[in-house]
Amino acid sequence: MRIAVDAMGGDNAPLEVVKGCAGALDREQRLELIIVGKEEIIRDILQGYHSERITIQNATEVIGGDEAPVEAIKKKKASSMVVGMQQVKSGQADAFISAGNTGALLAGALLRIGRIKGIDRPALAPILPTVNGGAMLIDAGANAECKPVNLLQFGMMGSAYMKGVMGVENPRVALVNIGTEEGKGNALTKEAYRLLEKSALNFIGNIEARGIPEGVADVLVCDGFVGNVILKLTEGLAMSLFAQLKREFTSNTAAKIAASVLRPGLRRIRDRLDYKQYGGAPLLGIKGGCIKAHGSSDALAIENAIMQAVSFIDNNVEQSITENIQLEEKDG
Amino acid sequence: MRIAVDAMGGDNAPLEVVKGCAGALDREQRLELIIVGKEEIIRDILQGYHSERITIQNATEVIGGDEAPVEAIKKKKASSMVVGMQQVKSGQADAFISAGNTGALLAGALLRIGRIKGIDRPALAPILPTVNGGAMLIDAGANAECKPVNLLQFGMMGSAYMKGVMGVENPRVALVNIGTEEGKGNALTKEAYRLLEKSALNFIGNIEARGIPEGVADVLVCDGFVGNVILKLTEGLAMSLFAQLKREFTSNTAAKIAASVLRPGLRRIRDRLDYKQYGGAPLLGIKGGCIKAHGSSDALAIENAIMQAVSFIDNNVEQSITENIQLEEKDG
Repeated sequence: MRIAVDAMGGDNAPLEVVKGCAGALDREQRLELIIVGKEEIIRDILQGYHSERITIQNATEVIGGDEAPVEAIKKKKASSMVVGMQQVKSGQADAFISAGNTGALLAGALLRIGRIKGIDRPALAPILPTVNGGAMLIDAGANAECKPVNLLQFGMMGSAYMKGVMGVENPRVALVNIGTEEGKGNALTKEAYRLLEKSALNFIGNIEARGIPEGVADVLVCDGFVGNVILKLTEGLAMSLFAQLKREFTSNTAAKIAASVLRPGLRRIRDRLDYKQYGGAPLLGIKGGCIKAHGSSDALAIENAIMQAVSFIDNNVEQSITENIQLEEKDG
Repeated sequence: MRIAVDAMGGDNAPLEVVKGCAGALDREQRLELIIVGKEEIIRDILQGYHSERITIQNATEVIGGDEAPVEAIKKKKASSMVVGMQQVKSGQADAFISAGNTGALLAGALLRIGRIKGIDRPALAPILPTVNGGAMLIDAGANAECKPVNLLQFGMMGSAYMKGVMGVENPRVALVNIGTEEGKGNALTKEAYRLLEKSALNFIGNIEARGIPEGVADVLVCDGFVGNVILKLTEGLAMSLFAQLKREFTSNTAAKIAASVLRPGLRRIRDRLDYKQYGGAPLLGIKGGCIKAHGSSDALAIENAIMQAVSFIDNNVEQSITENIQLEEKDG
């Protein structure tokens, strides 16, 4: 299988991205990588590393983190992001990975790669840490405005992914809502509840945000506005709590000594909350795989994102999504 | 000043509620309380406590925590909640406090007390813990569906409250959104941004959920769906993190000893995250004061909620809200 990687995207590009590529090639022998970006720089980094399974695809432009997404995708045709996506569109690559501008990746995936037939809105779907592993949050920000049918499709895509890539047998799909009973919520969630309930999914009903960290669901369905708030608040609160712990635990010598004993436990908690362990957030509903690695990804995070794409391809997630949609269209 | 208290609402009613009433009377000499509920039970609890500043208002019914709100308010006319609200409506009391059914309190406040003229939608507005104190989250769940003008009014009400009750000189009002730049978000937040920007408020722009715990704003404006998700996720994540800390810190003897040294620091963090320190969540936009105490309130939390109502009355928050609205209507 062949995967294209945006060498120029993210805070630690290109060095960490290219190192992550090398790591993934060592881990997976069937893998071939197309590293997309400024050829000379990539060659410089790769000097010590040789593999027949690497192709460098030159791309002279870079889309910055704060550029307006749609404009950037339309104008910068020679950017590593656009060139990388063309590898998927043309069939040269099975998937594309980038740690760059999220908005540009979303816009580009729609404009340059295209949707799976029957999917109205692709969705960004990171794994959110929970006490017993992780749950997929879909949509986490690709669609600020949604219709009920979009939420139904998010449930289908999330379910297919959790089964295929994460190995969850019969993924429990929950609707994020402001009350657990049926009939709660706004017009969007009320109607989405009805659609999810009569679908073939393992729909377990509404979930309140309070219950999210408890891990009672495998797929958390919501519109992209709510999902983005959940994703960022989780990140912000965890950071804030760890900063407060650090302050308290370094306030005097006795505390410092005691904290050193507890460090392994604290590290376990912090690791559970760490995004990077899951690689990146897949963009589901796109033809071919597309994975958004965290902007602050290091080499290991990039390596994990590539392995995630390998699993995505191995388990035919795109095919499962297509089948789920066709099944629903026949029943609906 | 006279405040009506629902003796029958909340998990620890009536004992803790009545004890909280006694505590507040000791703390504030100008205070008179109307304790509303089953007279005999209240008299039993009060046996050891005498005060001329207590009136007991008999109410033979109780609205349960899981009753359908609107129906309960309409049917149970002799409930402590409805009778308590009538005290405000009739001018017998300046404010009403309940730890009971939140939905019933919201419905009852609209149906039995009534809105401030010019306010389209009253809002539930708890104080969310931040690293440097707290920020008002408005709306936290009274309105699952909102229009842009509602969000503008939430900003006005929150600003008036933070200035009057919390003593914040020029409250910084932020709009919860999925990006910091103007033009981000959904149709609701885009238009609300425009309204907030041209208002007389100290509007500081959009805030992403990641920034909420950092305390960069005093008033966090959002629709009730998003606000409810923020409130409950904050609660759920804090609970989950403390549970994980407890598990790690009791996993072996060395950890237990070390953790005992760190207990005061952990307690300080936990206290900062504790709702009860702020008493309750005001329902803003209602004629007279109305405060929702947390369902799990103990005597101290009830006492704090009563003192919060005292401050609400002392600082003429209702009047400030009315003036803000009139000013806006003149300009608008």
